[in-house]
Amino acid sequence: MKERDLISTIAQEFSATAHDLIKGIGDDCAVFKKNGKDCWLISTDLLVEKSHFNLDWQSPFLLGRKSIAVNLSDIAAMGATPRFVLLSIELPRYISDIWLTEFRSGVKNILEEFDCLLIGGDTTSGNQLTISVSIIGFASTELIVYRSGAIAGHDIYVSGQLGDSAAGLELLQKGLKKNADCQQVILSHLDPQPQIRAGRALAESHAVSAMQDISDGLSTDISHICKESRVGAIIEEKYLPYTSTFTELCQKYQLNKRSLILHGGEDYQLVFTADKSNRTAIKNISRIIDQPFYRVGFITEKPGVYLLTEEKRQIDIQFKGFEHKTPQ
Amino acid sequence: MKERDLISTIAQEFSATAHDLIKGIGDDCAVFKKNGKDCWLISTDLLVEKSHFNLDWQSPFLLGRKSIAVNLSDIAAMGATPRFVLLSIELPRYISDIWLTEFRSGVKNILEEFDCLLIGGDTTSGNQLTISVSIIGFASTELIVYRSGAIAGHDIYVSGQLGDSAAGLELLQKGLKKNADCQQVILSHLDPQPQIRAGRALAESHAVSAMQDISDGLSTDISHICKESRVGAIIEEKYLPYTSTFTELCQKYQLNKRSLILHGGEDYQLVFTADKSNRTAIKNISRIIDQPFYRVGFITEKPGVYLLTEEKRQIDIQFKGFEHKTPQ
Repeated sequence: MKERDLISTIAQEFSATAHDLIKGIGDDCAVFKKNGKDCWLISTDLLVEKSHFNLDWQSPFLLGRKSIAVNLSDIAAMGATPRFVLLSIELPRYISDIWLTEFRSGVKNILEEFDCLLIGGDTTSGNQLTISVSIIGFASTELIVYRSGAIAGHDIYVSGQLGDSAAGLELLQKGLKKNADCQQVILSHLDPQPQIRAGRALAESHAVSAMQDISDGLSTDISHICKESRVGAIIEEKYLPYTSTFTELCQKYQLNKRSLILHGGEDYQLVFTADKSNRTAIKNISRIIDQPFYRVGFITEKPGVYLLTEEKRQIDIQFKGFEHKTPQ
Repeated sequence: MKERDLISTIAQEFSATAHDLIKGIGDDCAVFKKNGKDCWLISTDLLVEKSHFNLDWQSPFLLGRKSIAVNLSDIAAMGATPRFVLLSIELPRYISDIWLTEFRSGVKNILEEFDCLLIGGDTTSGNQLTISVSIIGFASTELIVYRSGAIAGHDIYVSGQLGDSAAGLELLQKGLKKNADCQQVILSHLDPQPQIRAGRALAESHAVSAMQDISDGLSTDISHICKESRVGAIIEEKYLPYTSTFTELCQKYQLNKRSLILHGGEDYQLVFTADKSNRTAIKNISRIIDQPFYRVGFITEKPGVYLLTEEKRQIDIQFKGFEHKTPQ
């Protein structure tokens, strides 16, 4: 079943403009007013067992961390700072008290890492382990980076190497959970690192025109920016960043390298755009936070999202990213 | 399985005091700062098919309404005004597009009734229909009514007649969905009315010392107030309000009248406490908003929650209310 987007359908029937709402549906977070200068941001995610995670692969501790991490990533994508978390969980009978204790430790661990407070939630019984997290962050209103600011000619960057998480998932699916050479990419999948620091530094620089986190694959997530900014994009294959370990694993285990880099989900890196005149500024931020950013393409006036391959062919990659599978 | 309260367990490990947080876990909503004078409130609820609702009984339109209504009720319980809603839904394959269209209409209908905006959410596929709603409201910080303000000697009130929703549920379970005489209480169960207007009027009056919505039954919900206020309560059976229809149905279909009134869940009325000196003030609010309030007992210094029966016996009713059943 293709995911049926109830939320955007309802949103289309609403005119969500109001004096206290800065941004409704259509970005990584909704934004509402705090005071004259600052605002709160909110985002929510639903994680379902077998669709979004698999208990055979993921320890309760890391699942606790990841449940929060994927939401933190939405706050990072706007350049904001996370603050409050609400966590609801539907618990089937087969979840033990020990499992819950470890899950709770994972949640607590990542909340402390990012200086967040748990302020609410709901626990209920059910047939299927389902986790719902809402996260609230804050930012100076004028610093928030939306998806809608990209302009033709702007550079496209990503905040880190791509493909590891999707490779990790595929190796887990192949039953290679215990292979030593697979551990690094498997951990990328099970314990993603939300880019809060990079997002905030980029927002504070004023150098960035649009931003989004890479949860469904670069091809889909740059497509969101293009849709909201009413532009197109060319991604240049030769610039796409990945690790040497990733390349080796793709060869050894016959993984589709290009597909994992472009369409693989859950890297939770950031994709962002910036005017060419800001290249030095972007380099400076990269140096200050000690994290490389990679220029991977450019925004075009013509709609559509294309990959320019190393053989100079153009391939349509618009919204070709990862969709979570329906559990059996 | 008894519901295992993950949230309060994590909360105990946190010291959730912070400059921007007014109230963390432990009330109907968490409260965080808006500006010097006002604040935002947030609450979240998870509704699971067969545990919280049954598609054989509930039309998608009314399920859409109820999913939002139970959250609105948490905002009412603090005396606040609802504003923004986030809605996530896990959709199994058997949910049709027509069903979704009707569900969406129900959501839209109640959002408009309460002047709320949908600002976010998530749609995903899964095996079990699960709905997660987060709701944000606002209030003047000094007007918010918490569970923790009840003092020995204060009166206990409820904002409406009790037992209808639980009677409706039991009649549905008995297969009496189509019986004409059952329709009124069945509708109370399927389409509860959140007491936003009453909650706000009571908060604005400054006459109320503690408040909570009745979602799990009066016995459990007054117990929450007692726990947070470190007091006890006596509920006087002779004062408990219910309709004549309710009495007739209890007789005709052999329902346990006392149990439904005291422990039956999902009335979504308010239970609140007030100093005896405010009796006239409470009567005035009742007159202004044209809704009767019923004085049903009083707060005691001694801990414990007891029913004083019409035969003058005292029965322990602390936390004896409704728990959602585990789906089969």
